[in-house]
Amino acid sequence: MKEQEYRKIEEFMQDCMKEGDAAHDREHVCRVLRAALKIAQTEPEADRDILTAACLLHDIGREREYADPAVSHAEAGAEMAYRFLLEQGWEERRAAHVSACILTHRFRSGRAPVSIEAKILYDADKLDVCGAVGIARTLFYQGKMGEPLYRVGGDGKPLPGGPGEPASFLKEYRQKLRGLYSRFYTPAAAEMAKERQEIAEAFYQAILREICAAD
Amino acid sequence: MKEQEYRKIEEFMQDCMKEGDAAHDREHVCRVLRAALKIAQTEPEADRDILTAACLLHDIGREREYADPAVSHAEAGAEMAYRFLLEQGWEERRAAHVSACILTHRFRSGRAPVSIEAKILYDADKLDVCGAVGIARTLFYQGKMGEPLYRVGGDGKPLPGGPGEPASFLKEYRQKLRGLYSRFYTPAAAEMAKERQEIAEAFYQAILREICAAD
Repeated sequence: MKEQEYRKIEEFMQDCMKEGDAAHDREHVCRVLRAALKIAQTEPEADRDILTAACLLHDIGREREYADPAVSHAEAGAEMAYRFLLEQGWEERRAAHVSACILTHRFRSGRAPVSIEAKILYDADKLDVCGAVGIARTLFYQGKMGEPLYRVGGDGKPLPGGPGEPASFLKEYRQKLRGLYSRFYTPAAAEMAKERQEIAEAFYQAILREICAAD
Repeated sequence: MKEQEYRKIEEFMQDCMKEGDAAHDREHVCRVLRAALKIAQTEPEADRDILTAACLLHDIGREREYADPAVSHAEAGAEMAYRFLLEQGWEERRAAHVSACILTHRFRSGRAPVSIEAKILYDADKLDVCGAVGIARTLFYQGKMGEPLYRVGGDGKPLPGGPGEPASFLKEYRQKLRGLYSRFYTPAAAEMAKERQEIAEAFYQAILREICAAD
């Protein structure tokens, strides 16, 4: 991709992502792009321009989801990216390919990524929920939402984060983050995730130890 | 302290702490109280009733600090606790003692704790900024404030969190959290903090590794 074309897509991304959200900011997009390009080194058939555009634009629909939680940011972003790329003179086929990658990047969407570029974007985005960065982003989001570290039972003791509990960090880790590490499409991403698993689990175990320390 | 007296102080504390703040919620107060009572086991001269009241009431001034950042929650809380305890029939001397503990619990206040109860409250509150719980509370607070994980330089690369940078998690860890572990008044708290230092430093190092992983 030419420098000028990259700058235009980056500029559009920044225009779409003005709200303060430390879990999904410009640096998240940059980390996803860097991880995706690293994974692509082991997937020679991946089209780097498709992948670069898909990474840069994958979260541009978030503002619409903030404004209306019934909107899926993956669906909104897929549509916005498709229109933008056509306006930039991209071939329809390639704009649709980028759009499809964005549509399937969402963890909870139920739509599985099909092309290798869609799989790499999915993996790179999930990698950013792994390890210490994933823990930090989860805590940023929960702090913004006012969710607690853990819940307590009727006896005043911390609850472990089981499926029936209201939202908390312990629940989010046990019910979602912990299970992520085995769900990657590309071997390179699975390997990178594995390197990040130990610190995430050690952090969770330390929280459990510390909150029960003086019991 | 009688059960009924404890319940009344706890109820007053809860009435004063209604705003959602996951870093300074009821569970923070409970952890501080539990840690303080554990430290007190090694400090036989400490008055457990003074200490219990001081722990329960140490953050009741926070709402006034949220409403007006020029207010110090330690000063506001010390005054509120003094009046409340007098109303509850506490001796003036003992209400003033609890009040003095609250006045000096704040890390940045410049006022050093004098009595053993004030030192234990200070240590127990600082313990809750150590380890994984301390990292989680810092990230909750920064998420609420919209502060990022790290800043980037003109070259787009992450900055390490030096003193001249704007607020970020890397800066908060390097400039404040990392230096906490050697600043305790009681040997028991210093020992408990030491047990929590390794996971905090490991988490910080993992963030640095992960954000530079694909460079």
